[in-house]
Amino acid sequence: MDNLTENLNVRPGDIVLLVGKDRKEFIISVEPGREHQTHHGVLPHDAIIGKRWGATVATHLGYTYLILPPSLEQLVRSIRRATQIVYPKEIGYLLMKMNIGPGTRVIEAGTGSGGLTLALARMVMPHGHVYSYEVRPETQALAQKNLAALGLLPYVTLKLRDIAEGFDERGVDAVFLDVREPWDYLPHVHTALKGGGFFGSLLPTTNQVAALLRHLQQPAFGYIEVEELILRPYKAVPGRLRPFDRIIAHTGYLVFARALPGEFNPDLDTRPERFGDPDLTDAAEFIDDSE
Amino acid sequence: MDNLTENLNVRPGDIVLLVGKDRKEFIISVEPGREHQTHHGVLPHDAIIGKRWGATVATHLGYTYLILPPSLEQLVRSIRRATQIVYPKEIGYLLMKMNIGPGTRVIEAGTGSGGLTLALARMVMPHGHVYSYEVRPETQALAQKNLAALGLLPYVTLKLRDIAEGFDERGVDAVFLDVREPWDYLPHVHTALKGGGFFGSLLPTTNQVAALLRHLQQPAFGYIEVEELILRPYKAVPGRLRPFDRIIAHTGYLVFARALPGEFNPDLDTRPERFGDPDLTDAAEFIDDSE
Amino acid sequence: MDNLTENLNVRPGDIVLLVGKDRKEFIISVEPGREHQTHHGVLPHDAIIGKRWGATVATHLGYTYLILPPSLEQLVRSIRRATQIVYPKEIGYLLMKMNIGPGTRVIEAGTGSGGLTLALARMVMPHGHVYSYEVRPETQALAQKNLAALGLLPYVTLKLRDIAEGFDERGVDAVFLDVREPWDYLPHVHTALKGGGFFGSLLPTTNQVAALLRHLQQPAFGYIEVEELILRPYKAVPGRLRPFDRIIAHTGYLVFARALPGEFNPDLDTRPERFGDPDLTDAAEFIDDSE
Amino acid sequence: MDNLTENLNVRPGDIVLLVGKDRKEFIISVEPGREHQTHHGVLPHDAIIGKRWGATVATHLGYTYLILPPSLEQLVRSIRRATQIVYPKEIGYLLMKMNIGPGTRVIEAGTGSGGLTLALARMVMPHGHVYSYEVRPETQALAQKNLAALGLLPYVTLKLRDIAEGFDERGVDAVFLDVREPWDYLPHVHTALKGGGFFGSLLPTTNQVAALLRHLQQPAFGYIEVEELILRPYKAVPGRLRPFDRIIAHTGYLVFARALPGEFNPDLDTRPERFGDPDLTDAAEFIDDSE
Repeated sequence: MDNLTENLNVRPGDIVLLVGKDRKEFIISVEPGREHQTHHGVLPHDAIIGKRWGATVATHLGYTYLILPPSLEQLVRSIRRATQIVYPKEIGYLLMKMNIGPGTRVIEAGTGSGGLTLALARMVMPHGHVYSYEVRPETQALAQKNLAALGLLPYVTLKLRDIAEGFDERGVDAVFLDVREPWDYLPHVHTALKGGGFFGSLLPTTNQVAALLRHLQQPAFGYIEVEELILRPYKAVPGRLRPFDRIIAHTGYLVFARALPGEFNPDLDTRPERFGDPDLTDAAEFIDDSE
Repeated sequence: MDNLTENLNVRPGDIVLLVGKDRKEFIISVEPGREHQTHHGVLPHDAIIGKRWGATVATHLGYTYLILPPSLEQLVRSIRRATQIVYPKEIGYLLMKMNIGPGTRVIEAGTGSGGLTLALARMVMPHGHVYSYEVRPETQALAQKNLAALGLLPYVTLKLRDIAEGFDERGVDAVFLDVREPWDYLPHVHTALKGGGFFGSLLPTTNQVAALLRHLQQPAFGYIEVEELILRPYKAVPGRLRPFDRIIAHTGYLVFARALPGEFNPDLDTRPERFGDPDLTDAAEFIDDSE
Repeated sequence: MDNLTENLNVRPGDIVLLVGKDRKEFIISVEPGREHQTHHGVLPHDAIIGKRWGATVATHLGYTYLILPPSLEQLVRSIRRATQIVYPKEIGYLLMKMNIGPGTRVIEAGTGSGGLTLALARMVMPHGHVYSYEVRPETQALAQKNLAALGLLPYVTLKLRDIAEGFDERGVDAVFLDVREPWDYLPHVHTALKGGGFFGSLLPTTNQVAALLRHLQQPAFGYIEVEELILRPYKAVPGRLRPFDRIIAHTGYLVFARALPGEFNPDLDTRPERFGDPDLTDAAEFIDDSE
Repeated sequence: MDNLTENLNVRPGDIVLLVGKDRKEFIISVEPGREHQTHHGVLPHDAIIGKRWGATVATHLGYTYLILPPSLEQLVRSIRRATQIVYPKEIGYLLMKMNIGPGTRVIEAGTGSGGLTLALARMVMPHGHVYSYEVRPETQALAQKNLAALGLLPYVTLKLRDIAEGFDERGVDAVFLDVREPWDYLPHVHTALKGGGFFGSLLPTTNQVAALLRHLQQPAFGYIEVEELILRPYKAVPGRLRPFDRIIAHTGYLVFARALPGEFNPDLDTRPERFGDPDLTDAAEFIDDSE
């Protein structure tokens, strides 16, 4: 309860989303003594500290900003990025598809700017862990900074490594590859995953999807799925409700598969029989055999 | 490590996804002595117990099934349902948009068959909590059974209540309404949410969305968004990659808003100035004012 | 054959699409003595006249352009516009749905910049006719210029008129309304259409669609349909085939209905029984009763 | 006018769409003395002849049907088919993209059940012509019957021929290939088309699209485009406006290109420089160089 009372107001160190009347948004870490420069005047952090969440604050020129706690979606979209990020719509879906939640041990590569990393870390805490591989030092440094700003570093191990050398972990629950040619690393993925473990990848082109599918035709993998998520935002005007004119219509194709106990055979590229190609009408039924 | 070794094999009480060559899927709780009847013969649970995850098991007629741990997506789609469920694609996205993760306190209504409830419970554990309201006793009983089967009841408080009477909780992080006329309960939502807290709803028709938007034009709410997610599955065949012919093309529109400190004014239905109507190109920037 | 030979080369008066290496496109009417100014130098029309269709032509700076006959899709998209145009994807579809082709008599309002008008004129020629109503003189003048440039004026009667005053024509095959509040003119539409005739409209918001549907619940109209067309362009790169990142995701909702012999009842807004609400799985079967 | 008066009523030989209250639809050719059997009783054609278009007619059991002229969209969807048809949404769009209208000379292969053929014939009449190639005699016979029933045979030449042997026509405006491996026939397409002429194809898989794009990287072709059209039908209920739950989400990818004067080089599969890869924001501008 004490905790609830405190949470009513912005405290030093809090991560704050500021939303202007011009719909311009900023996310800042609030620290006593600092100032935030906007196009509409200066906003001293001290004017934000102690305000109620959801209240407004004015710049020295009288321009007001709404003070909100950022959502995970907003954090992911706001991070400083050197690379293309995985979008929140795909992140939310892969959490569900790859069974990632509190307690999960998950490998990710590459780290990139850390957008997916921070979402994974937020979701597996407090007892799970993210092992995130990246080959470019400056990219990893950016991700580290992003994760540190949000206090999520304790849940992440950042590794500076070409994943062609393999992963250190064994028996992990899930592996997600956001790399150009994920098929090159399937034997390493298989070695790291536990039986029935979840593999996922995000690929922008149909050619990459076809190549990955070809390499997944292995006794070592099964239950292969390809899906695409399209997010359609609407103008939130009650009397003129309509979709946005222009949208981001393509981010990538999601490919999912499961690790099976079979050996990975690098020479194989056809598989006569496949388990579990998903069919829309065949959601599993939960059956109680005690009845 | 000991734990890892154990996890290699299916144990009594484990929730198991069985996938047949005919792509028919079942999810069962494995118990010694029980049997599972399939169209292709009998599958004794004892034949599954002790098997490695990802291995296959055969019925007495020799028909084989793949043994997999189900994903949260598969669990949600598999539960016994008396009502329309919220789909995994929307659940994953609302986790991101409404900042729901480990530690979150969230109210949900109605409970329905418990599909969303189980996903929320899985994601807020171990320290968060789900307060789930439902007015129909038999629906609640079904949800309770579904949650119990997955060991998630400790993270959920099920309440048999018409939410027109209000919510018991105060200062919660998020409220999600999956009801026909969510606008009727906005004052209660506002009372229960903490400042800047997350409100979300899923509505099948454009008329409902317009009505909810009209009622959200309140000083008590802001940052209103309407979005729709379309999931497009593809045939996972490397040489003939193509979208499924027929898909579920509509589940519902997601409406999101934030609770602001202002008073809820039931007589109001226009608001001259609105904060934070989202614009696709304006993701917040994370800004480090220390530099 | 003589005609074919002539058609091999660009002649004075031809409408020409020029496509630069920078993918910048122009459509011009080629006339001896004129010049076309580009960012890459001057292109004398005389350098285009006599060239083979599909050949290239160079500016005085050596920058080359491809010479193509424009498609109807390109013409519609290229016209000088003072208003939002109806997009080619919707035009093509409404031709099919409203049975518009050679010989059709069709009413259209408003004329706007004449994009739809020119497509209709092109498709109903030589024996059909387009009656196009517009209330703004300068908009009509622009449409007239656009139609004249393409030689399509003989197939169009442009009328400067508020359609609240009704249409002059009777027994027409089809009426298409591209106006803000089409429901206001339904009695006039019904008077102008022949029995079973085609009514269509394009509306950007869901609120407008709902309003039009409400007013179509009349004995005077039946077989009501609402449809939306989404065009997804792909990067035409063989090794990196993928959808465009950003697209135009919404132009409008198409509403179609048929005029029935019943009287239009302006006081009516519910209709107990409805014919022919379309169901996707129920395409009509062509049945030969002679067998 | 005389013609108009006659058209008010159904005459012998007319093609009629019948729509039942159960939304079941039939398209029949009305002939004196015949009867149409429905699940709700017998409908003598003589009871339809003389009725006003848009009126209703009752079976001997009193079940009523709405009498409507079918649209081209309904005709295409209703024909007896032995093969997958090209859908009306794609037909309407390719008319616009390939500049097909009254007077156009167009080659099509294969004829299939004649759905596209009848739409093309309807649109190029009275002075254009469709040359339609098919290799299977019984398929061609079905198409011929479908075209004859609609009186469209005068505008079509049906050819029983493997197009690997080439096309007979030269200087045609457009060629549309609805075959499995269209790339095999590109040299023949190029020979048949006039300069700048329109090539189009419809392909269900991404692999086929990539293969066709690879073969179109030729000096003999340019202005290559890939597009997909998604049709989203809505429940036409004013108070509960919403998309259909389940739709046909994929028919095929449309590929368009233009014939250029260059030689077709069968050995080529890369082309260093490409003209006119379309960019969404770059619709051609119609420019009047006389000003």
